[in-house]
Amino acid sequence: MKKVAIVGGTGYTGVELLRLLARHPEVEVCAITSRSEAGRQVSDIYPSLRGEFDLAFTEPTNEILGQADLVFFATPNGVAMKQTRELVDAGVKVIDLAADFRFDDVDEWSKWYGMDHACADLMVEAVYGLPEVNKQAVQAARLVANPGCYPTAVQIGLLPLIEQNLIDTQNIIADCKSGVSGAGRGAAVGSLMCEAADSFKAYAVAGHRHLPEIKERLSVCAGESVGLTFVPHLTPMIRGIHATMYAKLQGPIDMNELQAAYEARYADHPFVDVMPLGSHPETRSVRGSNICRVALHQPQGGDTLVILSAIDNLVKGAAGQAVHNMNLMLGLEEKAGLEIMPLSP
Amino acid sequence: MKKVAIVGGTGYTGVELLRLLARHPEVEVCAITSRSEAGRQVSDIYPSLRGEFDLAFTEPTNEILGQADLVFFATPNGVAMKQTRELVDAGVKVIDLAADFRFDDVDEWSKWYGMDHACADLMVEAVYGLPEVNKQAVQAARLVANPGCYPTAVQIGLLPLIEQNLIDTQNIIADCKSGVSGAGRGAAVGSLMCEAADSFKAYAVAGHRHLPEIKERLSVCAGESVGLTFVPHLTPMIRGIHATMYAKLQGPIDMNELQAAYEARYADHPFVDVMPLGSHPETRSVRGSNICRVALHQPQGGDTLVILSAIDNLVKGAAGQAVHNMNLMLGLEEKAGLEIMPLSP
Amino acid sequence: MKKVAIVGGTGYTGVELLRLLARHPEVEVCAITSRSEAGRQVSDIYPSLRGEFDLAFTEPTNEILGQADLVFFATPNGVAMKQTRELVDAGVKVIDLAADFRFDDVDEWSKWYGMDHACADLMVEAVYGLPEVNKQAVQAARLVANPGCYPTAVQIGLLPLIEQNLIDTQNIIADCKSGVSGAGRGAAVGSLMCEAADSFKAYAVAGHRHLPEIKERLSVCAGESVGLTFVPHLTPMIRGIHATMYAKLQGPIDMNELQAAYEARYADHPFVDVMPLGSHPETRSVRGSNICRVALHQPQGGDTLVILSAIDNLVKGAAGQAVHNMNLMLGLEEKAGLEIMPLSP
Amino acid sequence: MKKVAIVGGTGYTGVELLRLLARHPEVEVCAITSRSEAGRQVSDIYPSLRGEFDLAFTEPTNEILGQADLVFFATPNGVAMKQTRELVDAGVKVIDLAADFRFDDVDEWSKWYGMDHACADLMVEAVYGLPEVNKQAVQAARLVANPGCYPTAVQIGLLPLIEQNLIDTQNIIADCKSGVSGAGRGAAVGSLMCEAADSFKAYAVAGHRHLPEIKERLSVCAGESVGLTFVPHLTPMIRGIHATMYAKLQGPIDMNELQAAYEARYADHPFVDVMPLGSHPETRSVRGSNICRVALHQPQGGDTLVILSAIDNLVKGAAGQAVHNMNLMLGLEEKAGLEIMPLSP
Repeated sequence: MKKVAIVGGTGYTGVELLRLLARHPEVEVCAITSRSEAGRQVSDIYPSLRGEFDLAFTEPTNEILGQADLVFFATPNGVAMKQTRELVDAGVKVIDLAADFRFDDVDEWSKWYGMDHACADLMVEAVYGLPEVNKQAVQAARLVANPGCYPTAVQIGLLPLIEQNLIDTQNIIADCKSGVSGAGRGAAVGSLMCEAADSFKAYAVAGHRHLPEIKERLSVCAGESVGLTFVPHLTPMIRGIHATMYAKLQGPIDMNELQAAYEARYADHPFVDVMPLGSHPETRSVRGSNICRVALHQPQGGDTLVILSAIDNLVKGAAGQAVHNMNLMLGLEEKAGLEIMPLSP
Repeated sequence: MKKVAIVGGTGYTGVELLRLLARHPEVEVCAITSRSEAGRQVSDIYPSLRGEFDLAFTEPTNEILGQADLVFFATPNGVAMKQTRELVDAGVKVIDLAADFRFDDVDEWSKWYGMDHACADLMVEAVYGLPEVNKQAVQAARLVANPGCYPTAVQIGLLPLIEQNLIDTQNIIADCKSGVSGAGRGAAVGSLMCEAADSFKAYAVAGHRHLPEIKERLSVCAGESVGLTFVPHLTPMIRGIHATMYAKLQGPIDMNELQAAYEARYADHPFVDVMPLGSHPETRSVRGSNICRVALHQPQGGDTLVILSAIDNLVKGAAGQAVHNMNLMLGLEEKAGLEIMPLSP
Repeated sequence: MKKVAIVGGTGYTGVELLRLLARHPEVEVCAITSRSEAGRQVSDIYPSLRGEFDLAFTEPTNEILGQADLVFFATPNGVAMKQTRELVDAGVKVIDLAADFRFDDVDEWSKWYGMDHACADLMVEAVYGLPEVNKQAVQAARLVANPGCYPTAVQIGLLPLIEQNLIDTQNIIADCKSGVSGAGRGAAVGSLMCEAADSFKAYAVAGHRHLPEIKERLSVCAGESVGLTFVPHLTPMIRGIHATMYAKLQGPIDMNELQAAYEARYADHPFVDVMPLGSHPETRSVRGSNICRVALHQPQGGDTLVILSAIDNLVKGAAGQAVHNMNLMLGLEEKAGLEIMPLSP
Repeated sequence: MKKVAIVGGTGYTGVELLRLLARHPEVEVCAITSRSEAGRQVSDIYPSLRGEFDLAFTEPTNEILGQADLVFFATPNGVAMKQTRELVDAGVKVIDLAADFRFDDVDEWSKWYGMDHACADLMVEAVYGLPEVNKQAVQAARLVANPGCYPTAVQIGLLPLIEQNLIDTQNIIADCKSGVSGAGRGAAVGSLMCEAADSFKAYAVAGHRHLPEIKERLSVCAGESVGLTFVPHLTPMIRGIHATMYAKLQGPIDMNELQAAYEARYADHPFVDVMPLGSHPETRSVRGSNICRVALHQPQGGDTLVILSAIDNLVKGAAGQAVHNMNLMLGLEEKAGLEIMPLSP
């Protein structure tokens, strides 16, 4: 059994890691840390975990974390970068579920995240952990930046089009809708049930931190800077991201061929499901699972493609993708611990 | 007191008309019809109306309807067109909340609604009841086609841009999200709480009936055929439509001037609220009210405008707009009965 | 026009007072206070109020409040008691929506609320503002304690039974369910959408602060100390309280007579709706309105009565009842400003 | 691998059986039937099952069902009783998830279910499949009646008290709250999102079909007829049942001893979690899992006990309990296929 530790275990990505790892056949959680809850049993805070873990929260010391084969940082932005250098040097592999290592461009990162980076060299070394793009690099990595939730849904939806140079990359639109868990477990007025339920709104239209992440990654793929309009929305549900993407075709296209190309592109990627042409993926069809479902549309046969992509933001958009990356980094079976059926209804 | 009748009173638009008319100072409901519920008291089916109406459902005979000054059809598509001729000829004004009279092009209507039209000449006569466009024509009309919910939200968001020739009208995108009440009160599996709650999906991407309605109206405004990609989504809430629209600018723009232009465009329209530049309207901020809130964005100062528009689909998107049209047609104060505060939270 | 002021305007009861008073024909809001938001426009925080109030939050000084005919305290427990003495002495009437003046027994109050009372004499003077019991006293009062939400629903359901000595008062059970807005607008983890939605739980079974309030009031009515088991639950909705009450009959009963007795008891109380025998009131049937709907059941003709009672916790359970009390205290029409139709669906 | 078939696969219990059986290590689904959907692939109707089953719906012929080791009836009441005799005679074991075999008293059954019973002798033979009571009998059974959802939650909460003769069995109250999935996947107006969301109500107070089931089972346990008031409520969530039970103590009690007695009672039952004294189980803490969480309270140290019990109505209240019974009947490991983590949030 491999040993893993979780830093920052009281947020939704932390508890979701515990849910997934509780049934992982080859990994055990040797430590979970939380400064605020140190000393308390995990199951006191999360009754859904009762009987699963005999584990109390501890302080995030390097001594404790150093005993693990791999450490997950399920912490706010800016935390992992302060502790990663020491762990990596000690031979402990690291996956950061926050944004500290997601960018190639350190200055861009500092601009969007409003702080200096504590270990810019590691940012360069870090592998962007979207297995559908970087599986081999992740297998060899000692530090992986787990992608953002919106970037995961958007990239999986658009990659085949960009890789095959089929669309105008200067005018991509990603209209994205997220459940409230994307805002985390922090006690914020905007995340209250009475503020977020039975209502719908856009937010951060002027510029969301996932915009530069998506742009950078799509630009790497395109070999040129892409033009992207990204509008995130808050939708009154707990889990789920639905991305509706609009792209201008470069020329005529056979949709059956495009469908086949998508299926081929993701044939070796067990967590992407290319649905039949013209399908409408529902977020509940991936609830609790690590699957991304994608569907293609060409409304009225026109020159605008509509690509739909649905994930569970806490699984494929966070903890599940992190476990996937962990499996790759530790040489385990790719799907280990992730063969969880979606919960529907 | 003017007398009005409602045909098809058991759906959501019917009961919403009752809610609004219960407090209308100059109108009384003289009849409400439902074949399936004939004989039952309104308040037996709708306990929220207890004590408000001493009114039983009746059969929709012309004798009963002929006593009204104005008749609302809150019926499925294809019903109003069969009864309107006789009413109009008898001097009774008619507002159809369904789609029977929304199009100018009868053939297009037949194509999308899958039936022949029973009175094509009246379709030509009918005024499209979006008061923000056709206020004077509505005042003079004897037959008004109440606009669809999506078309209302989208047109109010886009009209100033098209009227002033500011955007590329061949590449408009309207990504729209509706609450479940838009699907009506029919017992359909897809509208069950267990199917629609805590999930999000697109639907009818291949072509929704509101697409030709929006295109026709925007084309009238533009003086040329517009190009529109329209994707509706189902969002897990009861009421509300949020439209996120993307438009390419024809050239450089001063957003403060555009904001001023929007405010001027809607200055005489009491139910449109142009929010401050960069706002994010929430559907709950219009819940239960006849208001449409609009906000403008130019993300990163680029050439793509984002326009946000929020309405309550049952009010401004249906029954409230119908009462607004009724006020205009009967020569009443424009806002009579519609000064209802939004219910938030 | 009478002038009223609101202290503590940023919580749900504060904004709900604004919603109701915006349409009140004889009252205007002259001031609303909030230390944290002083200087900001009301509509900046509550977009649903845009265009309704040209009012900025101020500091809660006695100078400002002293200009009002009546002041509402929509503040946390323990705030009103510090400022009420001065206002009342200056001739300003006061309604506290919190618990500072709800008890007769000051020691009991201190025990449950964990603080000393700042003006115990005023607590004795204060009238408990349940108009269905104390209408005349409220009309004469200068200080009214607005009842708690659960106590309102429970008392209206049980009063006729106790007044007529029909039930065993030592074994009453009140199983109550509240929407999340009952927890207020404070940023607490337990009120987050992701914690409270799509789940159901009991809370505070060991003893909720509304238990002594209900017991004291029912005991006053019974003329002896009653025995009550009160279990509150959190239900995943925004507004609404549903109380299910179980009472043992003292002897045989004719349910039609009991029904008639309930109807007679509340005949002069416009905000209580005694539904037909055997009805099931839904909270949505009172959403946004000041109505309490009550229904009686005698399952299988046995000796246990089941009484159902539904209110909107923010209206009849808080702000609406406060406006009702205000109307009585200021000599206005009892229903002024409160003839709001429920919003359903 | 054992083979099982599912009759009536398009309802929520049917698809939930598929979810659970998809990961069962020792069982494969050899057939699933639906008259209305015969010929369609399972995953066409349930996208959440895509990639899991290569299985089309078939007609429910005895030829097909006879190939299975065990058949689940996930059908409406009155269906299983018509087909069970032939299957059982052919050596196929049967679990009925509906009510056809839940009663001992055939006349009582006919009274509540409004039809004659097609095989009264099998009703007598059938074992009531609550493993916490009848584990050994289930192991030996060829026909098991899977308990109702409410009866499961209520019995697990009350059994230890009744078995140890601690409470007044003539005055038990069970105030129960269910998510909407309990009403099934039938297209009924009352189950629509717009009818059931954001609202709360009691229903069937006069008498719900689970009342006689609970009474009969508790009476068997008590050795005398018990007196029960049972009030079910509809709560706006998808899954979950929360039972709040009130029982009068026969005499003084030590709550720590009672707690220990509950823990001992359920020590050998892996799907019952007796939470620490004074806990408040949330339905989400068992969402998607087969666990029943129970907690004990003695409010204010009085003579009324409050017992809280939470299950997922589709799992422990239906499909999960059926799989548990299947494991027992087929001699498999008791927990096989049921070690599913709750999905929270």
